[in-house]
Amino acid sequence: MNILNHKFELAARPVGLPKRSDWAYKEETVRDPGEGEIVVKVLYVSLDPAMRGWMNEGKSYIPPVGIGEVMRALVLGRVLASRNSMFAVGDYVYGPLGVQEFALTNGGGLTKVNPAAAPLPVYLSALGMPGMSAYFGLLEVGQPKPGETVVVSGAAGAVGAVVGQIAKIKGCRAVGIAGGARKCDYVVRDLGFDAAIDYKAEDVRKALQRRCPKGIDIYFDNVGGDILDAALTQLARSARIVICGAISQYNNTTPIKGPSNYLSLLVNRASMRGFVVMDYASRYGEAAREMAEWLAAGKLKSREDIVEGLETFPETFLKLFKGENVGKLILKLADA
Amino acid sequence: MNILNHKFELAARPVGLPKRSDWAYKEETVRDPGEGEIVVKVLYVSLDPAMRGWMNEGKSYIPPVGIGEVMRALVLGRVLASRNSMFAVGDYVYGPLGVQEFALTNGGGLTKVNPAAAPLPVYLSALGMPGMSAYFGLLEVGQPKPGETVVVSGAAGAVGAVVGQIAKIKGCRAVGIAGGARKCDYVVRDLGFDAAIDYKAEDVRKALQRRCPKGIDIYFDNVGGDILDAALTQLARSARIVICGAISQYNNTTPIKGPSNYLSLLVNRASMRGFVVMDYASRYGEAAREMAEWLAAGKLKSREDIVEGLETFPETFLKLFKGENVGKLILKLADA
Repeated sequence: MNILNHKFELAARPVGLPKRSDWAYKEETVRDPGEGEIVVKVLYVSLDPAMRGWMNEGKSYIPPVGIGEVMRALVLGRVLASRNSMFAVGDYVYGPLGVQEFALTNGGGLTKVNPAAAPLPVYLSALGMPGMSAYFGLLEVGQPKPGETVVVSGAAGAVGAVVGQIAKIKGCRAVGIAGGARKCDYVVRDLGFDAAIDYKAEDVRKALQRRCPKGIDIYFDNVGGDILDAALTQLARSARIVICGAISQYNNTTPIKGPSNYLSLLVNRASMRGFVVMDYASRYGEAAREMAEWLAAGKLKSREDIVEGLETFPETFLKLFKGENVGKLILKLADA
Repeated sequence: MNILNHKFELAARPVGLPKRSDWAYKEETVRDPGEGEIVVKVLYVSLDPAMRGWMNEGKSYIPPVGIGEVMRALVLGRVLASRNSMFAVGDYVYGPLGVQEFALTNGGGLTKVNPAAAPLPVYLSALGMPGMSAYFGLLEVGQPKPGETVVVSGAAGAVGAVVGQIAKIKGCRAVGIAGGARKCDYVVRDLGFDAAIDYKAEDVRKALQRRCPKGIDIYFDNVGGDILDAALTQLARSARIVICGAISQYNNTTPIKGPSNYLSLLVNRASMRGFVVMDYASRYGEAAREMAEWLAAGKLKSREDIVEGLETFPETFLKLFKGENVGKLILKLADA
């Protein structure tokens, strides 16, 4: 085939915010697929906060990326060559093929997607891992009831935006926490949240008192740190805190800031529970069907923040931690 | 009647560890009971870590003790005079009558106890609030299953000792964390725990790895702070953390230490949940009957650490925070 691949391999375990030298940019020739293998041309790479965790050594919910391995990422691509009867040339596929232009794979972990049902980037966004995290985290872990108040941090991000919109679909009040007026406007005006709190401009604790006078029934946390602590001060009785992530803490060089106000769980008979979206993999299909219906009906909006060019990966990835993206951050490598 | 009462009133909101001057010792004549009222002679006063929280200003699960009010405490006493048809002279009663020798009350919040069924101090211990906290916290919040590993901190205290014993009754492994060899011996030899960890002599994190090789399924926390953080590092998948209290943090003059390792909840799909035992008040009778059967059958042991003399209250109370008591700390004021 004589295809030239470019990729980012993990070169070092980052200390604090990752820098370009934590990866090595490599060029290689892709060999022809063997029996059972396919070659996928990567079109879109999903950039997710969780990737920062995968770069660290040590036990977590999945093994870390090894030094010298291609940087793990979920991607959307198209089958370029196939010696696997499950995949035909031209098929669109979704899976963890990494930050690279072409992937040689046996197809394990790949799902076919229908390009006619939704724009391709949406398969990395509302119909991908972020959407699944929002869906199962809110509905299964949070167990919302109509009339309850749902607060979500990282509200303009890929997960948070979907959490608030599903909360509205389920008859809840949705309050988003985000950084900056532009993001706050977006979640209220474009996504239909009832209110937004700008953590860069407001005292989050006081704003939560004002915006959630009857207390927070569900707090869906994507950020950790001081915002989690503020939410703990405003819990309603029997509140549920859903721990999806803690983006404010992922680049710490000091110990993680634990939630000082955790005894609010006792006073309010509340719970804090973590989840890993992959546990719900057997139900992704069911969730995706329902989410696709909501998208088609205009009840759910998916927004992507698409940056072009594989080479920009190290800097583009950092937009997540600098709060620069609105909607799902995606790296575009090629047209379909 | 011409009865002279002595009592401790709250005089100041303590900063850090309470001191004698945070209470005022007062003498007064008890007036004769009016219609519907009774006079109770207090025999035993329960000293509980929760009392420290009741001395603080601010919102909690019950209002704070007001300055100038008798210090709130659960007591066991005997009816000395009655103009209330619900209570006869000689009845033994249990309820929040405070740190004083005699209480004039309309009987609200009092429960009659049967002195033939158990020694009187046991009604403040395994059959009182600590026992109920252990029972409902472990069984309702923790939901233990046979074969699971239950770890409890403050294991030689009034709540912890019962948690471990109920865990054993339910077919679990019980591991206690306590301070000092004497307490560790007590929970293993006298109470039948499978193992004990001396947090004053051992690295708790490493000891938990050794003692709980398959991870902690339920961690029942009475202490908070570093021990909670250590337990978080050794959770089994789907672990439940039951937040009953945080005695290590109650006298802080700096902010409470939040659990730095709380993201272990995410990695392990675990939950942390607080509870307030009073929510189960309607089921105390059912629990007390079962606990009394276990006591009678020798499956459950209740141990009390009884100190005599109302005047010793301020110093005796501090034994809780200095880790000096083994078993339920009780102040004895008079013989029945």
